[in-house]
Amino acid sequence: SQSGSFGCASFYQLKQEGLGISKFANIGNNIDVSFVDVLDFFNDDTNTKIIGIYMETVKYGKALFNKLSHVVPKKPVVILKGGRTSIGMKAASSHTGSLASNYQILKAAITQTGAILCENASNFITALKTFSILPIPQGENIGVLTNSGGSSVLFSDKLEEYNLSLASFSEELKEEMRQFLIPLVKLVNPLDMIGGAAEKQYYNITKLMLKDESLDIVVACVVIPPFLEMNSDEHYRGIIRAWNDTGREKPLIPLVFFGDYFENLNTLAKKGKAPIYYTPNEAAYATKILIERAKSLSKNKEESAL
Amino acid sequence: SQSGSFGCASFYQLKQEGLGISKFANIGNNIDVSFVDVLDFFNDDTNTKIIGIYMETVKYGKALFNKLSHVVPKKPVVILKGGRTSIGMKAASSHTGSLASNYQILKAAITQTGAILCENASNFITALKTFSILPIPQGENIGVLTNSGGSSVLFSDKLEEYNLSLASFSEELKEEMRQFLIPLVKLVNPLDMIGGAAEKQYYNITKLMLKDESLDIVVACVVIPPFLEMNSDEHYRGIIRAWNDTGREKPLIPLVFFGDYFENLNTLAKKGKAPIYYTPNEAAYATKILIERAKSLSKNKEESAL
Repeated sequence: SQSGSFGCASFYQLKQEGLGISKFANIGNNIDVSFVDVLDFFNDDTNTKIIGIYMETVKYGKALFNKLSHVVPKKPVVILKGGRTSIGMKAASSHTGSLASNYQILKAAITQTGAILCENASNFITALKTFSILPIPQGENIGVLTNSGGSSVLFSDKLEEYNLSLASFSEELKEEMRQFLIPLVKLVNPLDMIGGAAEKQYYNITKLMLKDESLDIVVACVVIPPFLEMNSDEHYRGIIRAWNDTGREKPLIPLVFFGDYFENLNTLAKKGKAPIYYTPNEAAYATKILIERAKSLSKNKEESAL
Repeated sequence: SQSGSFGCASFYQLKQEGLGISKFANIGNNIDVSFVDVLDFFNDDTNTKIIGIYMETVKYGKALFNKLSHVVPKKPVVILKGGRTSIGMKAASSHTGSLASNYQILKAAITQTGAILCENASNFITALKTFSILPIPQGENIGVLTNSGGSSVLFSDKLEEYNLSLASFSEELKEEMRQFLIPLVKLVNPLDMIGGAAEKQYYNITKLMLKDESLDIVVACVVIPPFLEMNSDEHYRGIIRAWNDTGREKPLIPLVFFGDYFENLNTLAKKGKAPIYYTPNEAAYATKILIERAKSLSKNKEESAL
């Protein structure tokens, strides 16, 4: 990081998410120790699984991008750039006295290396959390189940902004799912199981989707219903039980819309080292970067094979 | 709302923010009761201060936009549109069976009325919270103080994305501020008071900025330092004390970066009906919509005067 306080703020948020930090390096204005040195160190450090960088200025650009290309296949690198705009740059310069750089050029160069460049601080945390907990998908076929319109609609909107789309369910999957659903439910993706869906439906449908070979990522949306005498955590329990029963092999994105109101959910997730996302944007961002990383790894594999 | 579950999820989040809801109307696919009817009702309802709408489909477009133009000068109207993209629309249609509409056209029409159109669910909540707590500014001159680089840099970046900029401090303000700051501090906007700034500096500088005639909005950024034996809430207490001592006349945006880790802060804010924002994006969005509303109100005033 080039900002001690940014690192500090991230600590608070990561701790809240139940994530650990192995080491934090604050290099200020970059005058003696550079990001290249720090990347070298973290690349070899066996206690570091994921590398997060808050960057304001770029020094030794070519060396940095080479180093990133070298590190990324081994460990995910997540970068947030402060000072993207002229007033942001002015703010950065009044603090560390160093000049920020042209963002569009930087963006192209970083994306080329396969590192994840985040657009804001919330996405930065989401990325670290996602790579800490979830496996990388084998492809980009996304299946969605939900008990509510709003959550899956807003998730789908954001997904399309990222140029991603939803898979079509295979006939076999539809047949298998039918037994657990009321006849009113249309067997399309997103699968809207309607408000009555409880632990059992969430468990069975999530499990079927996770086991289905034509799907690579499963997104389970929930709005906790205030009626029908349901427990506030039963949908989530069903989802995670399905993930555990399938060996946690595929990435699972539980979107419990504004569910951070319910403390028991966050505690459950932390204890079980299980994923949980609270807004459609956060869930869509996690989906996007998992697919980005899958692509960058397979591209790298192809290149190594040449 | 056209989604019962969206309303329900919003309840959870608003409750967490300490905000109340007077009434909730869920109109599903719009077949009998329309948004026009509901707006009429809420416009006259004295218990309703702000109107929030989750919309998937638009019916009676012209009547709706006329109604909005009529209501907005009296009460802020905040709108989130689900089904902005083709897959989002598909998701919406599988739930309510109604077709969503072209987003860009809708956006232009809504903006014209002065209503606030949000891009995502988090911004929707931020907008409701902001209009509940803060007064509307008299202009768009923004002053920023901070104890940390990262938070104000990221805030400034987002501000510029919204085509907003920071004011220049007047010579008088600089002179007055100098007495409370260490010589290392550069008297520029954002004012970086560096990590040692505590309750006293936050109180005095926030107060000077709030009282300064050349500033209309004050943004006070904090990263709670883990050192110097400071209390986790002292910066925030200083900021709010200054706001109270100046009669809460100007909008104040306290950005406590990822400070939701500290429960005492949220409790303090709720109890005192005081503003608090936890990410640079959220703070920048609040700033943006306050200025948007100020402009729409003054435009309306001019038109009425003709």
